[in-house]
Amino acid sequence: MDTRVIEKQKLKAISGFPEWLPELRIVELQWLDRIRAIFESYGYAPIETRSVEPVEVLLKQGDTDKEIYAIRRLLAEPGEDATPEHALHYDMTVPMARYVAANLNELVFPFKRYQMQKAWRGERPQEGRFREFYQCDIDVIDTREIPLHFDAEMPAIVFETLDALGVGPSVTKLNNRKILAGYYEGLGIADSANAIRIVDKLDKIGAKGVGEMLAKELSLSPDAIAKILALTEIRGTDAAILGQVEKLGVKSETLEKGLFELGFVMKELERFPKGSFVADLSIARGLAYYTGSVYETKLADFPDFPTVCGGGRYDNLVGSLINRRLPGIGISIGLTRIFWKLQKEGRLKPTRKTPTDVLVIFPRGGEYAAVAATARALRERGLKVEMYHEDRKFDAQLKYANDKGIPFVWFMPEAPGGAHRVRDMATGQQADADPASWTA
Amino acid sequence: MDTRVIEKQKLKAISGFPEWLPELRIVELQWLDRIRAIFESYGYAPIETRSVEPVEVLLKQGDTDKEIYAIRRLLAEPGEDATPEHALHYDMTVPMARYVAANLNELVFPFKRYQMQKAWRGERPQEGRFREFYQCDIDVIDTREIPLHFDAEMPAIVFETLDALGVGPSVTKLNNRKILAGYYEGLGIADSANAIRIVDKLDKIGAKGVGEMLAKELSLSPDAIAKILALTEIRGTDAAILGQVEKLGVKSETLEKGLFELGFVMKELERFPKGSFVADLSIARGLAYYTGSVYETKLADFPDFPTVCGGGRYDNLVGSLINRRLPGIGISIGLTRIFWKLQKEGRLKPTRKTPTDVLVIFPRGGEYAAVAATARALRERGLKVEMYHEDRKFDAQLKYANDKGIPFVWFMPEAPGGAHRVRDMATGQQADADPASWTA
Repeated sequence: MDTRVIEKQKLKAISGFPEWLPELRIVELQWLDRIRAIFESYGYAPIETRSVEPVEVLLKQGDTDKEIYAIRRLLAEPGEDATPEHALHYDMTVPMARYVAANLNELVFPFKRYQMQKAWRGERPQEGRFREFYQCDIDVIDTREIPLHFDAEMPAIVFETLDALGVGPSVTKLNNRKILAGYYEGLGIADSANAIRIVDKLDKIGAKGVGEMLAKELSLSPDAIAKILALTEIRGTDAAILGQVEKLGVKSETLEKGLFELGFVMKELERFPKGSFVADLSIARGLAYYTGSVYETKLADFPDFPTVCGGGRYDNLVGSLINRRLPGIGISIGLTRIFWKLQKEGRLKPTRKTPTDVLVIFPRGGEYAAVAATARALRERGLKVEMYHEDRKFDAQLKYANDKGIPFVWFMPEAPGGAHRVRDMATGQQADADPASWTA
Repeated sequence: MDTRVIEKQKLKAISGFPEWLPELRIVELQWLDRIRAIFESYGYAPIETRSVEPVEVLLKQGDTDKEIYAIRRLLAEPGEDATPEHALHYDMTVPMARYVAANLNELVFPFKRYQMQKAWRGERPQEGRFREFYQCDIDVIDTREIPLHFDAEMPAIVFETLDALGVGPSVTKLNNRKILAGYYEGLGIADSANAIRIVDKLDKIGAKGVGEMLAKELSLSPDAIAKILALTEIRGTDAAILGQVEKLGVKSETLEKGLFELGFVMKELERFPKGSFVADLSIARGLAYYTGSVYETKLADFPDFPTVCGGGRYDNLVGSLINRRLPGIGISIGLTRIFWKLQKEGRLKPTRKTPTDVLVIFPRGGEYAAVAATARALRERGLKVEMYHEDRKFDAQLKYANDKGIPFVWFMPEAPGGAHRVRDMATGQQADADPASWTA
């Protein structure tokens, strides 16, 4: 048996499960910190749900495209049922809905929460699609109707977040499920959910493909199909789009309501740079549970790259678990997807392999206790300080600082009573320094 | 079919997979932040490994007590092999070892990393034992020998961390595998690894049980067994224990080395409060890979509660993956276990259900844009600010602030040109305030 082969196999990357070197993980943590700070600045509270849910709960939410990873104890006992009971969650929305329903009496409404966790999908890995990835979500759930202002706050927070991360301009397309459902209703289509599901494939199979599916699966007339496709062509940044819908001559109360809501949201988003938000009536979002506003965000610099954020309003998802009305609205940032793309494009410039600010050099023949005490004194003042734990040539110690990108190295006094000295590794300049007062 | 039953089932907690309400998650995040800050203050760099490893890698490390969760795509294709290839990791050490071996040329040594992630074990849940839990690890891996100073730094950092978390006094027991292996060697026992494994069961099966196992499995003489048990009774906070070992009359070079190392570490830890560190020659640690120092920490206030931190030196674990010498040393904090225990004992006193500092009250008949602009102005100054998104009775809005533990509420001017006012919810005091300059 060739053990070398097994060993190499062990070290291989697993497709779809990304890992970063420390210098990139430092940047990823900065991103997570920034996102969390923005979410908290709007008063969203953190929760973290367990990684697994009952298989039944995950399967029920319809999004069957997402392949689910079931878990099972490797050493399951002989009597143990082979049917997997639990599976890793594929997003944060379904677990959050379950969490809210389970903790209804302990939560204060409107419940505003954020969640920044990994999710897992057994999809075929491809550009921007991972099997393990971070998502960062905010959602609002209420026992009352959720004011429309939240429909604007969601994409506004995502805009602010992407801007803070420095990912370049983003474009969020907005639509409203009531426009789609109401329009189809006005056309006399009973099964609007299935029509929405088919129209959602527009990006993948094109207008022709969607037309054929609508004819085949829903037996729609060529006229109805033409009207449906005409609606998907409407987009714009202002209220003019409402006029374009009117021209199509389809009417229903739900459609009116949807148009009002979309107009309201677009109006509130007017304060953002032109082109950041676009009403686009082709946007459907695949998930069955959306009932109002829907959003999809792309990075403007990478128009062919998949959607990086998405969300919408879902008035029935949470309440359906406990037979109550609990409207919800939320949006999700596909952190791993964005991060991966930017590092691939060379847009991330990590400079440090360690958080260390200062490396205390171990003097030749020095006293460990004195070096450690100096490191401790600096650390107590809030600095991130490593000491070189070994009496070794200065060259080797300086190379270590240089290789890790540590900005300052610290030299102990050469003689008792002498001065400490600090070297700025970027400039090479050295100066006397006092451990009790030195700052970078 | 009774759908109500299914629904209730869906909402049930899953045994061993803890979840917290927002007020506790806020505290847990504070803990994670504090631990991270301390790890970084010593120059440990963050990494995060994927959640899964090849089953073969996880099984190889011997710790077969830990039941492993394999993952498998629920919709696996018919041709797909039913044998699980990947499983969720049960700790951070094995994944870190694999990561270091895989990225050897990209890392700078000594490689000092921290990892704060969830791990999964399919064990029977019981007090302090979870199936999903956070571990916070630091480790050092080097291509050279790792100086003994690190053997003291590891438990010192853990002490500082537990102290910063306010978990009450901790006691870390220290031993050295070389003492055990060398002592057994001196007794003429060839299979010291198995002897260590059996002695590790002392806590569970007692001295009598260990003696019986040693006799049965390793065919040791009553005299050898008596000597082994005598060693496990030695403990103390100072160098006197070395004399006690000498009295047992067993000698070997490895034993000498182990005693020197333990003495060295105990000496460096003398600066900590008496009783925080205890040399205890009964400590073995179950994991096969330890080769030197081993540590186990307990919360002094809960002596019957399981070990909350553990670690040690492992000179061969990482290198064995690539046939090189890569010594390592590390320690792990069982965050979920500690956090769970403290909340159970009522030691955590969460006060807030949200990070929000200020709630901006929506005035009756007010303008949304003006309220939102005020919230934005406060937010831009670094405050965490929610606005009540709805024109609603003040009582309901104040109740919301009160129920969530929001410390301040903000009132818009009652008339144009009037003053903003802030109420301190704790004292009930109100005062004029300027959104451009107010601080809490």
